[in-house]
Amino acid sequence: MFKIAFIGGGINSAIGEVHRAASQMDGFFKLVAGAFSTHDAVNRATAETWGVSLERTYADYKDLLAKEKGKLDAVVILTPTDFHKDIIVDALRAGFHVVSEKSLATSVQEGEEIAKVIAETKGFFCTTYNYTGYPMVRELKQFIEDGKLGKIQQVQVEMPQEGFMRLGVQGEPPKPQAWRLKDTVIPKISLDLGSHLHNMVYFLTGERPERIVADQSTFGLFPQIVDNVGALAKYTNGVRAQIWFSKTALGNRNGLRIRVYGSEGSAEWFQLEPETLKTCDLRGHVSLCDRTGEVKIANQPRYNRFKAGHPAGFIEAFANYYEDIADCLSQFQKTGTFKSKYVCGIKTSLEGLAMMQAAAKSAQTDKWENV
Amino acid sequence: MFKIAFIGGGINSAIGEVHRAASQMDGFFKLVAGAFSTHDAVNRATAETWGVSLERTYADYKDLLAKEKGKLDAVVILTPTDFHKDIIVDALRAGFHVVSEKSLATSVQEGEEIAKVIAETKGFFCTTYNYTGYPMVRELKQFIEDGKLGKIQQVQVEMPQEGFMRLGVQGEPPKPQAWRLKDTVIPKISLDLGSHLHNMVYFLTGERPERIVADQSTFGLFPQIVDNVGALAKYTNGVRAQIWFSKTALGNRNGLRIRVYGSEGSAEWFQLEPETLKTCDLRGHVSLCDRTGEVKIANQPRYNRFKAGHPAGFIEAFANYYEDIADCLSQFQKTGTFKSKYVCGIKTSLEGLAMMQAAAKSAQTDKWENV
Amino acid sequence: MFKIAFIGGGINSAIGEVHRAASQMDGFFKLVAGAFSTHDAVNRATAETWGVSLERTYADYKDLLAKEKGKLDAVVILTPTDFHKDIIVDALRAGFHVVSEKSLATSVQEGEEIAKVIAETKGFFCTTYNYTGYPMVRELKQFIEDGKLGKIQQVQVEMPQEGFMRLGVQGEPPKPQAWRLKDTVIPKISLDLGSHLHNMVYFLTGERPERIVADQSTFGLFPQIVDNVGALAKYTNGVRAQIWFSKTALGNRNGLRIRVYGSEGSAEWFQLEPETLKTCDLRGHVSLCDRTGEVKIANQPRYNRFKAGHPAGFIEAFANYYEDIADCLSQFQKTGTFKSKYVCGIKTSLEGLAMMQAAAKSAQTDKWENV
Amino acid sequence: MFKIAFIGGGINSAIGEVHRAASQMDGFFKLVAGAFSTHDAVNRATAETWGVSLERTYADYKDLLAKEKGKLDAVVILTPTDFHKDIIVDALRAGFHVVSEKSLATSVQEGEEIAKVIAETKGFFCTTYNYTGYPMVRELKQFIEDGKLGKIQQVQVEMPQEGFMRLGVQGEPPKPQAWRLKDTVIPKISLDLGSHLHNMVYFLTGERPERIVADQSTFGLFPQIVDNVGALAKYTNGVRAQIWFSKTALGNRNGLRIRVYGSEGSAEWFQLEPETLKTCDLRGHVSLCDRTGEVKIANQPRYNRFKAGHPAGFIEAFANYYEDIADCLSQFQKTGTFKSKYVCGIKTSLEGLAMMQAAAKSAQTDKWENV
Repeated sequence: MFKIAFIGGGINSAIGEVHRAASQMDGFFKLVAGAFSTHDAVNRATAETWGVSLERTYADYKDLLAKEKGKLDAVVILTPTDFHKDIIVDALRAGFHVVSEKSLATSVQEGEEIAKVIAETKGFFCTTYNYTGYPMVRELKQFIEDGKLGKIQQVQVEMPQEGFMRLGVQGEPPKPQAWRLKDTVIPKISLDLGSHLHNMVYFLTGERPERIVADQSTFGLFPQIVDNVGALAKYTNGVRAQIWFSKTALGNRNGLRIRVYGSEGSAEWFQLEPETLKTCDLRGHVSLCDRTGEVKIANQPRYNRFKAGHPAGFIEAFANYYEDIADCLSQFQKTGTFKSKYVCGIKTSLEGLAMMQAAAKSAQTDKWENV
Repeated sequence: MFKIAFIGGGINSAIGEVHRAASQMDGFFKLVAGAFSTHDAVNRATAETWGVSLERTYADYKDLLAKEKGKLDAVVILTPTDFHKDIIVDALRAGFHVVSEKSLATSVQEGEEIAKVIAETKGFFCTTYNYTGYPMVRELKQFIEDGKLGKIQQVQVEMPQEGFMRLGVQGEPPKPQAWRLKDTVIPKISLDLGSHLHNMVYFLTGERPERIVADQSTFGLFPQIVDNVGALAKYTNGVRAQIWFSKTALGNRNGLRIRVYGSEGSAEWFQLEPETLKTCDLRGHVSLCDRTGEVKIANQPRYNRFKAGHPAGFIEAFANYYEDIADCLSQFQKTGTFKSKYVCGIKTSLEGLAMMQAAAKSAQTDKWENV
Repeated sequence: MFKIAFIGGGINSAIGEVHRAASQMDGFFKLVAGAFSTHDAVNRATAETWGVSLERTYADYKDLLAKEKGKLDAVVILTPTDFHKDIIVDALRAGFHVVSEKSLATSVQEGEEIAKVIAETKGFFCTTYNYTGYPMVRELKQFIEDGKLGKIQQVQVEMPQEGFMRLGVQGEPPKPQAWRLKDTVIPKISLDLGSHLHNMVYFLTGERPERIVADQSTFGLFPQIVDNVGALAKYTNGVRAQIWFSKTALGNRNGLRIRVYGSEGSAEWFQLEPETLKTCDLRGHVSLCDRTGEVKIANQPRYNRFKAGHPAGFIEAFANYYEDIADCLSQFQKTGTFKSKYVCGIKTSLEGLAMMQAAAKSAQTDKWENV
Repeated sequence: MFKIAFIGGGINSAIGEVHRAASQMDGFFKLVAGAFSTHDAVNRATAETWGVSLERTYADYKDLLAKEKGKLDAVVILTPTDFHKDIIVDALRAGFHVVSEKSLATSVQEGEEIAKVIAETKGFFCTTYNYTGYPMVRELKQFIEDGKLGKIQQVQVEMPQEGFMRLGVQGEPPKPQAWRLKDTVIPKISLDLGSHLHNMVYFLTGERPERIVADQSTFGLFPQIVDNVGALAKYTNGVRAQIWFSKTALGNRNGLRIRVYGSEGSAEWFQLEPETLKTCDLRGHVSLCDRTGEVKIANQPRYNRFKAGHPAGFIEAFANYYEDIADCLSQFQKTGTFKSKYVCGIKTSLEGLAMMQAAAKSAQTDKWENV
């Protein structure tokens, strides 16, 4: 089990909780330290919520780097992108292994500075691109590597969202974090969404972009930033890509969709239905593939915490139920009884048996039976 | 954090891993002991995989009950249903709080025996019905409680599966666990699937079944067991239900679908697309609801480990990526370098920036730009 | 071309227009006479709208039978079901060939009377069950005949509608035709919807129902009639069916869905997406079939008035456009000019060329081009 | 009823049958003459199939123009695009009203020549863009005109097809008509598909394209022609469009999809599910609209040949059934009996009654009943 610390990722951030839950889920990592937030109360609350010792919780990431030397297997950088470069460089120079959220940094110049330090320090460095973790995305990668689509010809990728336009239930405008509302050399939307699309195309096809033409717009409520980008791109080996990402496309919570077309077949994956890969062969036969059947990757045990037909998310739903059980146990420990809207006690469990037993009897008697 | 032990649920079982991951996800429970399997090697391997001390890993659940007294907040029963009654009764009598997988037991008689012991011991007891943990199922419950569907009139529920008929890729027949292939007073399929449907209808509507007529069939490869059940049921307050569950309905990995119709509206939830609740009001207006917008339950923080648009399962996908990072770290610790099909290093991260920066430039120059 | 007359089916009826358009579409029939409505103004308006000579338009169907003898190839009965028996019997006895809308009549007794007259007169008689006309339904029938699903085991059929509950936009209640609001020995909903489901199961499987258990309810706004029926049925050769039809299932305009399960595969057809047949084989491979590819029926020219990918309905949409053109021509004939929201004149047609020519130029110059 | 003639559109062409059926469906037009094909046998066969007098069927369109003067309300041009310009010009100069299939012509130069002749002759001219005939497309146009989407910001349109790559069931390559395999100044794919997308954007938004950048590729089996086009376009009033059309995108029979985003809402229409318009408002509320409920256009009688819930195509399915009836009548007229796989006679019709009557009895007796 690798011991890790978070820099950034407090409980008030968008991604802290995801990194915590994901890193702890399978028991490969243990979160033991952190500089979760520059806001002291948040920093402490995060540590307490996640069971990290307050002694190993630091107000300043530099303290963490100074005091955790030799005690960690890696630090995970979860701050806003604007701070990535400095922290990554400092951590590498301090001898830490570094895992960073995407995107790498805010500009090519910063990115190159990081690359230089990695080369100098010979340190461990990687970024997290979570969408490539879906079993059926990995199956698609394998599918392409195995030549099932033939020569890849074009990719259609899009990631429309609505966060910079959609109002709240009471009509209240969206309030993105401040750092998202300032564009520098690369618009924040391109760092945020565009970098996922770049990564996904490379992940799947292995091809590199060579030329691009793009159109950037500002449609939403924040006039100082780009919030919609369309582009055409030419990749190595003649592959074409058409790209769209947006934060002002109403109706799209997060419509990540990838379509890959080759000389022998095609495939489509849509993140809102992540368990299905739709494919078509050269004779037009359309199949819906999932984690079962003739697949090579998605049927591996590591991708099947529970069997297919129980879509990804089953465990999260089950965790919700466990939280309810925790609540019931708390009540019971205090009062010797419990009441719950959600947790099923003996009465209903028993009734379920009675109903099924009556069904079995009905099948024999050929009559309606009382439960 | 509640300290729990598993009885049953070894790494070779269908549900052990799910209970482990779900119970640990949010930090409410800690698995500290177990009698995971009567098969010694499996029992030990389970303990090692999940980091449970071998000293608190028992070959026999009775030893566990004897030696863990006072050290646990609850025991979780994950054995085949046939063993539930004896273990639950023993655990309750030994003074433990008990959480049990559904179904409660194999017959009404067994269930009543358990109920009697609960009453005698005044012990804590609940069963786990995981499907009720989905945020949008809970939203639907709230929706009904708030009267948005009016007077509930009928429920259509079904849970078709294919496991007792579908062959493997090489044509190999399915091999269900032995205990699933022996029906007693209630067919195993009714204990397994029917009890979920009973529970779901009650969970959502609060109504109790009164009369049922059913038709049981054997369509699959195991002639000694029922594998398909259709039924009509009459519930309290005039509610009607139509019920179908099957293990021989090819094409259905696990097609749990619930449709509730009332005098003022209707709602539909389909487990394979668990993030969406489809509703219709009295004037025929059809809406697709998710964790955002005008909802009361599904928008609570506890159901939003990550924001809507990132369907349930996002965290599991991310956990897959973290497993890859663990692999890279291992390689790196041994060799000072790493190679990964999946994890993104500096080169591609940097290229992403270059592509987005070229896009930004293209939007200004109105020309194709090199990446 | 067969010469036909309608009895019933005036322009104010639900189905007259459908029968007219469908019968005339491919040039096999010509509507030359009618007793469209007992309401004189409607009768005449129908004749005028459809170009039927007023001389061959009759106020009373008995006159039609008397005067059209020898001039028709068939009469088509489109009246409310309550009148079917008398008219069919009269038409057969008068020597006409008879085509009747389903359902045959209102009771078994009436049906048997008709059967007797058919036998006596040796007349031509058939009923119309339109849903069996869909190409993919016929493909499914062939699929089953060819044994691709193996031994048929069960059928799940349903036809939920909402017409007896759904309110109008202003909250106005539905107003079904009067004859639909009076149940006799068989509820009207069973004549209307149930007979379709019976027919569909027989059409597809060739099996005959032997035993049935049903539950009838009244959920909607018309307390005197049954509006929801659930049933289990046992068919010849051990086939099971589960059946649901309703006029009070909000959210379902007309949710006809058929699922057939056999020992070797399964298939699903949903009328709202009529171009797709979803199938699954014994190894769990799920395919989406349409009018192209490895099909035997749906690819016949008669089912491809336009090629696949242009779903059924393409022609109707095109007919809408032709109606607009008719409007433009009328304007032009009167005024020498026309104005249309819908029809595309020279300006926009020409602009389309300009845009595509600019696109072609851009692909050569690698630059943005003016349209 | 307008009298029309076809030039082109023989029964061996892609679109002749569609124009015939669509133009005749509602009784606004009558096809009375034609020069359907330069291939004499096809020309005659077409006339015979469609009941056009051979005296008014011409081998050469110039003869038609010469001899039908004063006898027609319009001529409809259905030839390959390459011939449009000459025929349109000749027809206009001969004093005919002209309806032409899209695209107008093969180049801007040709198009301008036509425009000039229209201006000179003051003749009637329009083109057919069939996709704009769908009721829900027209509803969307109205929706936009009514400001429900606010200020239109961008349009995403695509029309992927697969015809230049997909093989037949036996592996046979596609065989497009010869004229489609020769590109001139505008690639044929742009005339064929691109012109639809241009038209659709204008139809819906009223905006005109100003600038475009495009990328054309050749991916399929015909190296001399462009078969895939991606583009970005800037329209009047700051509207952006992203455009894709292809004949080599396997898995897409004809994937026409249109998404319109505005400052107050969005809407999506997909031709393969033409009855549904998916919309989203500024607060993220997603609705599925159809021909019922709060619509202004799609609920008009002319778009409801049959009621909603019976998707477009219902009539075509019914016409299939009528063709079967014609076959039965033929058999019966010859032999006094008939046999049909498809048409339902007395036996099954009567059985349907028996089944429903047994269901009604069961609901009263609370028992299984024999059919």
